[in-house]
Amino acid sequence: MEELVAQVRQGRRRAIARLITRVERSDVEARLAVQALYAATGRAHVIGITGSPGSGKSTLVNELAKAFRRHDRQVGIIAVDPSSPFTGGAVLGDRIRMRDLSGDEGIFIRSMASRGSLGGLARATSAVVKVLDAAGFDVILVETVGAGQAEVDIARVAHTTLVIEAPGMGDDIQSIKAGILEIADILVVNKADRPGAANTVKALRMMLHLGGEMSMRHHGELVAVAAVDGAAPAGAWHVRVYETVAPDGQGIPELVAAIQAHYDHLQASGEWLVREKDRSRQDIAQLLQAHFMEQLALAVPVADREALIAAVARREVDPYTAVARLFAQVNNVNSAAVAV
Amino acid sequence: MEELVAQVRQGRRRAIARLITRVERSDVEARLAVQALYAATGRAHVIGITGSPGSGKSTLVNELAKAFRRHDRQVGIIAVDPSSPFTGGAVLGDRIRMRDLSGDEGIFIRSMASRGSLGGLARATSAVVKVLDAAGFDVILVETVGAGQAEVDIARVAHTTLVIEAPGMGDDIQSIKAGILEIADILVVNKADRPGAANTVKALRMMLHLGGEMSMRHHGELVAVAAVDGAAPAGAWHVRVYETVAPDGQGIPELVAAIQAHYDHLQASGEWLVREKDRSRQDIAQLLQAHFMEQLALAVPVADREALIAAVARREVDPYTAVARLFAQVNNVNSAAVAV
Repeated sequence: MEELVAQVRQGRRRAIARLITRVERSDVEARLAVQALYAATGRAHVIGITGSPGSGKSTLVNELAKAFRRHDRQVGIIAVDPSSPFTGGAVLGDRIRMRDLSGDEGIFIRSMASRGSLGGLARATSAVVKVLDAAGFDVILVETVGAGQAEVDIARVAHTTLVIEAPGMGDDIQSIKAGILEIADILVVNKADRPGAANTVKALRMMLHLGGEMSMRHHGELVAVAAVDGAAPAGAWHVRVYETVAPDGQGIPELVAAIQAHYDHLQASGEWLVREKDRSRQDIAQLLQAHFMEQLALAVPVADREALIAAVARREVDPYTAVARLFAQVNNVNSAAVAV
Repeated sequence: MEELVAQVRQGRRRAIARLITRVERSDVEARLAVQALYAATGRAHVIGITGSPGSGKSTLVNELAKAFRRHDRQVGIIAVDPSSPFTGGAVLGDRIRMRDLSGDEGIFIRSMASRGSLGGLARATSAVVKVLDAAGFDVILVETVGAGQAEVDIARVAHTTLVIEAPGMGDDIQSIKAGILEIADILVVNKADRPGAANTVKALRMMLHLGGEMSMRHHGELVAVAAVDGAAPAGAWHVRVYETVAPDGQGIPELVAAIQAHYDHLQASGEWLVREKDRSRQDIAQLLQAHFMEQLALAVPVADREALIAAVARREVDPYTAVARLFAQVNNVNSAAVAV
């Protein structure tokens, strides 16, 4: 495992891929490897890209990756699909993408699907970001399919978050998810050559304007008062709407410049450290809950837990009492371990 | 508090409202009251209603409430808004709704907004359902704004889940959230008099058909193979698409009949107990995590936690080591408590 860690630090592609596979399996040794790599992280610019299915997100991510490559940056792409096996679109999309970007040693692509637990997926994504960061990637693009709370949580591992819309999806102001706008540092209307693009841009700007009056919160910290008319206070970040046509590369240079400007803003304003703290807080919370659930699984056999759940469902035990009992069992096991 | 519990059991409106307010404040005594009421729960039919903003959900919920009243059922409505203060639509909607339904003693309405923590909102919603259940409401309608993971989690407190779409939102099969369809027991296309309604119905039926081939999972248990062409196995529940025009009451009797049929199906198939167990499992998991975080807050002062987070952000400590330290502190405090 020490050898693997050393190879990952050197940016060896096969070592990176092998470690990620073990991270996804929640392998204990993989956790030790990520732990060993942690001190070497903190250099990469992590960019979250989220938005509705059908917004052309994957094509846009590919174009962004190519643009960063032209600036000689090493690019990691993590495509996360928290949705059910229902769709199956991601796999096809990934194959097309691999063909498009393959042959460039400066790009590493990995797709991750939720296999049951969303919490597990968020933890794994966070660990894979650490692996790529320690491996020397300058830019890490974390793409999530969909626009629900899961995607928002996953986007929280990012320093800069792009929210992608497409014409016809954002016309109805009601249908624009407020939560997703709140996490956006940069808004993109992709497929901007389609009919209705101007309306979508207008609707988003209006939404930003309305939001500006209430002030925008980023990652729990008040960092900017967004406004389209330049009313934001000095030093604050302006959330702006960009238009792109991804397959043509139209609007991509402007978008890359905006991403770079956001990076500079984070560094100059001290916001970079605020976001690093938010990422650490989130990491710790996720790992704590996972650790507690592991301890519970060790302390209380599945059959006992299921019997307790059934008793609660039959109203023989109330859930608060059930929780107190389970908690006491975890404590007893841990106290015994301490005593030994 | 014993007095309050007794009054809630008698269905006294003011006592119910007072207890819910205390539940929302995470009041310790309120928790004891809910605990005391728990044995009296398990009778109500809990119906989750979710779907995109703009689907006319609130109006539909009002019409459903009126229809259940005509069947002489006591109806509780919990309107949950997990989205940001960005929109502000819920408050206005609630005021209109209150006017529409006020004066009927058989209807109790409560709206709940997320004040920061989604987990907290899910726990509070679950507790409020218990209060209304113990107070003797026959039907509890839990309405959630939006269609993300948060809403899905909140919908899990329901026995029967309705997913509402409106024309123009579901035309693009890509834009229909797979996750939300998976939790649906009944699909509704509201505003069915609008142009494009037939397309939306068709798209949903096609989606169900595609889903049918992969089999549908409900609450983690395989309960039905959905199909539009009657290919579902005997005894399985058919997810069907209903059309409504809520302000006219059009389609409402058919929808109420479908809800009742689902209730009968749950009872006859034994699925009711399966769902009760799922609800209990979810309840226990939520309460366990909350309890653990409370213990952590007691064991580790905020300043210490923040210092540790900052050290992780600066790469001086890795997150796994941080978690091990925090966990050890919780254990030490608990072991000491056991020893005393």
